[in-house]
Amino acid sequence: MSSDVVALLRTELGDRVDTSPACLAAVRADKSGHGADGVPLAVVHAASVADVQAVMRVATATRTPVVPRGAGTGLAGGANTGGGEIALSLRGMDRLVEVRPDDLLAVVEPGIVNADLNALLEPHGVWWAPDPASRAISTVGGNIATGAGGLLCAKYGVVRDAVLGVDLVLADGRLLRLGHRSVKGVTGLDLTSLVIGSEGTLGVVVGATLKLRRLIAGERVTLTALFDGVRAAAVASAAVTASGIQPAIMELMDATSLAAVHRLLSLPAPPPGSAQLTIQTDGPVAADEARAIAQVLTEAGGRVSVAADDAEGEKLLAVRRAMHPAMETLGTALIEDVSVPRSALPDMFDEIARIERDFALVIPTVAHAGDGNLHPNFVFAGPDVPPVVWDAAEQLFHAALRLGGTLTGEHGIGVLKRRWLADELGDDQWKLQRDIARVFDPLGILNPGKVFAP
Amino acid sequence: MSSDVVALLRTELGDRVDTSPACLAAVRADKSGHGADGVPLAVVHAASVADVQAVMRVATATRTPVVPRGAGTGLAGGANTGGGEIALSLRGMDRLVEVRPDDLLAVVEPGIVNADLNALLEPHGVWWAPDPASRAISTVGGNIATGAGGLLCAKYGVVRDAVLGVDLVLADGRLLRLGHRSVKGVTGLDLTSLVIGSEGTLGVVVGATLKLRRLIAGERVTLTALFDGVRAAAVASAAVTASGIQPAIMELMDATSLAAVHRLLSLPAPPPGSAQLTIQTDGPVAADEARAIAQVLTEAGGRVSVAADDAEGEKLLAVRRAMHPAMETLGTALIEDVSVPRSALPDMFDEIARIERDFALVIPTVAHAGDGNLHPNFVFAGPDVPPVVWDAAEQLFHAALRLGGTLTGEHGIGVLKRRWLADELGDDQWKLQRDIARVFDPLGILNPGKVFAP
Repeated sequence: MSSDVVALLRTELGDRVDTSPACLAAVRADKSGHGADGVPLAVVHAASVADVQAVMRVATATRTPVVPRGAGTGLAGGANTGGGEIALSLRGMDRLVEVRPDDLLAVVEPGIVNADLNALLEPHGVWWAPDPASRAISTVGGNIATGAGGLLCAKYGVVRDAVLGVDLVLADGRLLRLGHRSVKGVTGLDLTSLVIGSEGTLGVVVGATLKLRRLIAGERVTLTALFDGVRAAAVASAAVTASGIQPAIMELMDATSLAAVHRLLSLPAPPPGSAQLTIQTDGPVAADEARAIAQVLTEAGGRVSVAADDAEGEKLLAVRRAMHPAMETLGTALIEDVSVPRSALPDMFDEIARIERDFALVIPTVAHAGDGNLHPNFVFAGPDVPPVVWDAAEQLFHAALRLGGTLTGEHGIGVLKRRWLADELGDDQWKLQRDIARVFDPLGILNPGKVFAP
Repeated sequence: MSSDVVALLRTELGDRVDTSPACLAAVRADKSGHGADGVPLAVVHAASVADVQAVMRVATATRTPVVPRGAGTGLAGGANTGGGEIALSLRGMDRLVEVRPDDLLAVVEPGIVNADLNALLEPHGVWWAPDPASRAISTVGGNIATGAGGLLCAKYGVVRDAVLGVDLVLADGRLLRLGHRSVKGVTGLDLTSLVIGSEGTLGVVVGATLKLRRLIAGERVTLTALFDGVRAAAVASAAVTASGIQPAIMELMDATSLAAVHRLLSLPAPPPGSAQLTIQTDGPVAADEARAIAQVLTEAGGRVSVAADDAEGEKLLAVRRAMHPAMETLGTALIEDVSVPRSALPDMFDEIARIERDFALVIPTVAHAGDGNLHPNFVFAGPDVPPVVWDAAEQLFHAALRLGGTLTGEHGIGVLKRRWLADELGDDQWKLQRDIARVFDPLGILNPGKVFAP
């Protein structure tokens, strides 16, 4: 039966069907470290919408599960492909099809890498704002499938705010064009938004119409502030938000994270126990805003340094961007992703401290403090997440929910958080969501076992 | 059977069930002028979520259609209630429940009027950006149900960009809490976005968590530019967008509209054939932006006047805001709502001129030129839309679709556009959308005959 499926795929798609052991092994995992069980049937390297449609027709005819995949940089196992499944790679469909600076839109294929897209857009004076930390390696299609966020979201929005339409191949191979090219449009239900963040459970994104912004004129000012502990830094970041000034970036690193990155980058060790905020302002009044923010931070007990220029500002941000490599030097990292209302950041850090005590764990944490999204890291030895870590993670999720927050700000549910999904949604909404997915995919062949699996 | 339904409602809801002839007559129509056939069973003035749940339980038990209603200011007949139907008014649930300037969010009941909400938010230094022209009389719940837009959308977004979560009562009376209080959140499918613009077909919106903005600091500068004809004005507005400067407001009035408003307001008649752009900039560099825009407009052949101050600026905008009253002095107005990519505005005005010639009609048109949303008005005598007007409107819709646009930018489908919905969506997407609605409402009692009716 499996060999029949591969044979059918080969008939339709020839050498775009890959069954090399290395390739089959690679698609079993994403950047979460978690891997699926079993060996996938095949990886199909789609080169066109027609290829995707052909795969889905074979899959429907043979009831074979299909896992859509971009660059495999997800952190929740959403693109992991296991035994009996087809991995459908969109990575090769990477063209920028159209740029319209006058309409502030671009049409792209899903496999284009976020940073590559922005490099192509820059000469036109425009950019696509979503900036996940993975932007140098993650695809726009993957950003859409996960509803990705990033550092700039409080000021410039998340993926949901930056997509006008998507082209979607359904489970049975039909192609739908969802959404609009116009700024406004309310024709029926907003299926574009429904697809954003649906993690491959509703269809295969084969194209997107993106909402662009003009490049930001004016200067950028970057500053850091050191605090005696993470709670003080969190209180200060909430004070910045409450002051009414909107920084482009406001990142928080706790003491463990900061020390680990300084070690990795061979920088002088920060004062013991120090947490740090890194803030960037941009636009026509960036300097005024940076001055006002520096005052708020100083009043909150921070020791402020302002970068002399863009190059020095980039160095300060590089410290934040080195967080994940620094964690990898310590062991295997499970990167969590809870998000809370901004005013609840100090309380969430208290909860993390409590969980560290209760479970005798160290949980190095960075946060997109401008939008309330925290990335607590659990670091351990070996490939498998120890039970104690999942117990602690569960406490983390429940604490975020109690504070009015969510399990996942930008990484998605995938396989790693599916067992807590109903805790947030409630059973009624969980079932409603799953039933909606079944309308798109009545046979249950689209990324089964992800998000809604019991 | 109908009397049984009313009796059941009275048992549950007492004097909140209204069967007075005047009230039953009022809910048959909205501001479109179109009215439903037959006399509704009852109007229920809900005072709480529990009231809404009680209505829906009776409706489910008796298979009775329910039409949710805010202030009845819709322009597509979406809230019109006909024979055998219950009108469920949310207008009385109008509390501002919570304001969090530090988290930039507010929690509201659905019946609060948009302008009333903003008056309450202003002392907190925040506002809710969606500004439909009806904002003085329309409710936030209605704005959500229609996915409303307004004048400020190109710079500050539409309703979809300004809602974090909704509380939704399902057809069977169960209450779901959709969405988040945090800036980011990707837990499962984005049902909040799905509800926005669903026109009462998925459930009854009984509460919302709104995303707020800080009040804009700095000055506002308002200017107008007169052009020899609407095409020249449209080309100039596209040039402003293409220049990279983002005005807060950019409105276009064609010659017929401008002349009608000047007559209504007893202003001196504009030069014959003149169309006008009215533009406002705001924020810290508003004056610089206005100067740059004035130059673009002058180079495009416009005769520019800049308001001396805010009061004069308001007078210039009042001309634009008097459009609907001016149309009402001419007869019954069917206000259309096509939207196109901004660069296609000049072509869309050419299409309108062609349709005027082909059908021997005058179609006074205003446009939110900043976002490409046009409101062509068909004016006629008597309450019923003449067949020739629908024939012309169909040409208008098809022209907008050819130019990459949509049937409706911000008013919705309701009853008035349902026969063209599949022209835009395609049959496959039309059916998929209807099947999704059935997941929420398996008995088909939520606003039947609207949006998806064949």
